[in-house]
Amino acid sequence: MRIAVLGTGVVGRTLAAGLHDLGHDVVMGTRDPASTLARDDEALTRWRAEHDAVGLLTFADAASGSDLVVNATSGAATLDVLDRAGEALDGRVLLDVSNPLDFSRGFPPTLFVADTDSLAEQAQAAHPRARVVKALNTMTADLMVRPGLLPEGTTVFVSGDDPDAKEVVTGLLHSLGHTDVLDLGGLATARGTEMYLGLWVRAMGALGTPLFNIRVVR
Amino acid sequence: MRIAVLGTGVVGRTLAAGLHDLGHDVVMGTRDPASTLARDDEALTRWRAEHDAVGLLTFADAASGSDLVVNATSGAATLDVLDRAGEALDGRVLLDVSNPLDFSRGFPPTLFVADTDSLAEQAQAAHPRARVVKALNTMTADLMVRPGLLPEGTTVFVSGDDPDAKEVVTGLLHSLGHTDVLDLGGLATARGTEMYLGLWVRAMGALGTPLFNIRVVR
Repeated sequence: MRIAVLGTGVVGRTLAAGLHDLGHDVVMGTRDPASTLARDDEALTRWRAEHDAVGLLTFADAASGSDLVVNATSGAATLDVLDRAGEALDGRVLLDVSNPLDFSRGFPPTLFVADTDSLAEQAQAAHPRARVVKALNTMTADLMVRPGLLPEGTTVFVSGDDPDAKEVVTGLLHSLGHTDVLDLGGLATARGTEMYLGLWVRAMGALGTPLFNIRVVR
Repeated sequence: MRIAVLGTGVVGRTLAAGLHDLGHDVVMGTRDPASTLARDDEALTRWRAEHDAVGLLTFADAASGSDLVVNATSGAATLDVLDRAGEALDGRVLLDVSNPLDFSRGFPPTLFVADTDSLAEQAQAAHPRARVVKALNTMTADLMVRPGLLPEGTTVFVSGDDPDAKEVVTGLLHSLGHTDVLDLGGLATARGTEMYLGLWVRAMGALGTPLFNIRVVR
């Protein structure tokens, strides 16, 4: 599958590498490739040298050549980034792994949208022809692509209004090693997984590591 | 231990029965025992006949004779109920299992406090001498007292500012069969477990049963 990962931060890099390792044709999207490449960002420079098969394009160019777009930008940047991708999102599956975290009050972050709305729904409303699926936002990036780092299987949630798009994402999740994919229902159920971040950040604080995930036992 | 369970609803009855079965000296608190007894409530009448060792007192009388008070009332009623218990809460461990659910917009409920505050903190602020511990609010009542109903061990979270009170609650949780008790830290971390309800209600909808719980795999 041709996959565009929007965002060159830790989440974007981890997902791009993991999806490339699975054999997908992966490109990364960024605001301005020339300025991203010129940036004095040692981690990104090293990552690019190690993953030279993963091209770097504008958000719109990355999305327009893809079958599936992954929003791996920060929650605060998400709506602006998707606006820049614009019509290139139309008809495409948009896997949104972001969270509406607001760090302006320090740690733990609060949520800038919750309960009666979600960032996933805001993205869908801004791009009605995109086929938004929320998933993977309930775990740290390493576990998104390598759930086997944990000693037991854990659960990944999917939310979306387009059944075919959810099926595409579910298949991708299985191929990444996620064995328990729980379909919560329509995209509005993303409110639940985004609100879970309130617990996630505090559990991370108590455990002293982001390398944990939940398993829904039933 | 002498335990006062505030609330005669399903959660209160389930906790009172479970704690009584463990050998504790349990009373239930209600607004007005005479009117509760006079009420045409078949489920409560049957429950009382089956658990005649569990007395029914006012909130204040129940709390004043106890070592530990459990708030098992609805989130909407919690602050009023605790006000009625009043000074009887002073110095006592107050285990708060409630959630700030607002059903006024239908299902799924929203939260009437979240993110920058929690119901547990509001209870503590209203009763500074109570020793509030938040726990058990992340699972259905049956699992609070019988976690073994599930095929695998799951996690219960505790939050509180009083280490000794948390130790009392942790001991009680172990005695109920909870093997993985995760101390999140101070009472403000109850924001996390209360916000988790946003995911819990949607997972319940997807699974079609409240008989599930999460295990934190790390």
